[in-house]
Amino acid sequence: MAVYTDITEDDLKQFLSAYDVGQLTSYKGIAEGVENTNFLLHTTSGAYILTLYEKRVDRNDLPFFLGLMHHLAERGLSCPLPLPRADGALLGELSGRPAAVISFLEGMWLRKPEAKHCREVGRALAQMHVAGEGFEITRRNALSVDGWRPLWNNSRDRADEVQEGLREEISSELDALEAQWPKDLRAGVIHADLFPDNVFFLNDELSGLIDFYFACNDFLVYDVAVCLNAWCFEKDGSFNITKGTALLAGYNAVRPLSPEEVEALPLLCRGSALRFFLTRLYDWLMTPPGALVVKKDPIEYLKKLQFHRTVRSAAAYGFRKADAA
Amino acid sequence: MAVYTDITEDDLKQFLSAYDVGQLTSYKGIAEGVENTNFLLHTTSGAYILTLYEKRVDRNDLPFFLGLMHHLAERGLSCPLPLPRADGALLGELSGRPAAVISFLEGMWLRKPEAKHCREVGRALAQMHVAGEGFEITRRNALSVDGWRPLWNNSRDRADEVQEGLREEISSELDALEAQWPKDLRAGVIHADLFPDNVFFLNDELSGLIDFYFACNDFLVYDVAVCLNAWCFEKDGSFNITKGTALLAGYNAVRPLSPEEVEALPLLCRGSALRFFLTRLYDWLMTPPGALVVKKDPIEYLKKLQFHRTVRSAAAYGFRKADAA
Repeated sequence: MAVYTDITEDDLKQFLSAYDVGQLTSYKGIAEGVENTNFLLHTTSGAYILTLYEKRVDRNDLPFFLGLMHHLAERGLSCPLPLPRADGALLGELSGRPAAVISFLEGMWLRKPEAKHCREVGRALAQMHVAGEGFEITRRNALSVDGWRPLWNNSRDRADEVQEGLREEISSELDALEAQWPKDLRAGVIHADLFPDNVFFLNDELSGLIDFYFACNDFLVYDVAVCLNAWCFEKDGSFNITKGTALLAGYNAVRPLSPEEVEALPLLCRGSALRFFLTRLYDWLMTPPGALVVKKDPIEYLKKLQFHRTVRSAAAYGFRKADAA
Repeated sequence: MAVYTDITEDDLKQFLSAYDVGQLTSYKGIAEGVENTNFLLHTTSGAYILTLYEKRVDRNDLPFFLGLMHHLAERGLSCPLPLPRADGALLGELSGRPAAVISFLEGMWLRKPEAKHCREVGRALAQMHVAGEGFEITRRNALSVDGWRPLWNNSRDRADEVQEGLREEISSELDALEAQWPKDLRAGVIHADLFPDNVFFLNDELSGLIDFYFACNDFLVYDVAVCLNAWCFEKDGSFNITKGTALLAGYNAVRPLSPEEVEALPLLCRGSALRFFLTRLYDWLMTPPGALVVKKDPIEYLKKLQFHRTVRSAAAYGFRKADAA
């Protein structure tokens, strides 16, 4: 939630002259997106999102992100479409930052999603996995199992500041996950961050997915694990199996999970919970006082991780064998 | 720059059902407005601003602010228009806060205004002063000369933390202003905060004034002094007399300043500089680390104040006698 870079009207008009978007009539910084600066533009031809990519995003990854949105939109997935410049490029430069103009997706993210929405999210996630086939650029998941130990090493010595015993608990969790992490599940392009604020609905119908800036190549079912963590826990920390059932059934209806994927799900849920725990812990410990970001509590994800350790099979998430491949 | 209150889609739809605005299709928190939370809404009938009034705004002042916008818009001034609810009220309640839906004004505020824009601002300010005649609710300017000493008393003992000698300099400035402040200049409704981010332009033409949440009753020419401070200094601290000339000529063309107003201008500029210095100093000293606001440097306004102390007549701002009433 931040506007890191302001832009002048003259610079913006100059920048937009390379796009077929009509005349600019307003632009407002919007309080969405943690990694980048986003403006909502109105022009004589409609509404657009202008994204300025800040330092946290590696410029080398931008062709992957923008190309992926283009690929998915062409395959019929409802997601923001990067507009081409007059020379065909999807990326320009504004205020010293790489910048893109992206179609504006109507819809709202749900602050209180219900089971019916979880079903739609499951469907859309599977549709994205199918639509991602054939996309030729690849991007390693830097926040998968290989990336967790380096991340943990940066926080480990201060972890007990957040909660007594964290250092011990997470170290042994990480050992276990590294030892047991699967090696040969079906892989493809995953969203990797499909939280409620990245899914838009209009009148209870899913209208699109946004924010592909963590997308990468990894096990497809890992993305399902991310969504179970992001969508199916209540504020009190309890797992809502009705939501889990709906999400998994929605996914399976489009791309049925294999028996191996189903079996791996509890472990992948632990891994996904650890991944968000580790980045939140790092931000919690390292964000300087006064920074313009809202720090998210890492303990929420510790509790999810602890829940997943008690899970013996995907049935505990509401998975029904009848749905399987 | 903040979104203090988030809202759920259901609450928002419920709230909007009292307005004639069509179906909601998106809402985004926007990074504008320091006092309130603002969302940009898209509906099937167009774009709107939704403002949630946070605690810093006194609820008793809301009928003044909303009524004033309505009054000014009816008199032909281009400014946001609060939409009536089904029962005619301009104010509702959302997420426990007073809330209003306001027409969306196309246009952009200028990060680098030029002299030609200053002329337009002067004209629009005078138009607002004329259009404000006949508005029957009144609101005292809590940030005029009577309000400065209580504000200063809250910061005085820590002022030298910001700059050595501040305590002494500001105390004697305040004594001088209290002793010399004029008593009988022409009064009316003033904007009191007409900074560049509150004035929209489209293609170099002024398209509207926004943010009337500091508006109040005071000397009209005090508003001119606020604008000279806000529009006519360069980033290096120098006063740009070309801009001052344009702003004053623009104002005079619509409402000629009286000789008394012209004579009072240097003192009012000092007062206006002190007013912004004092609120910035207070915020600088009192904002807790980690707060989601950008603190503005009070010293910028100390330097402006020091400049105005060297001014002997309004000619130093570019005022030309030929423009006077």
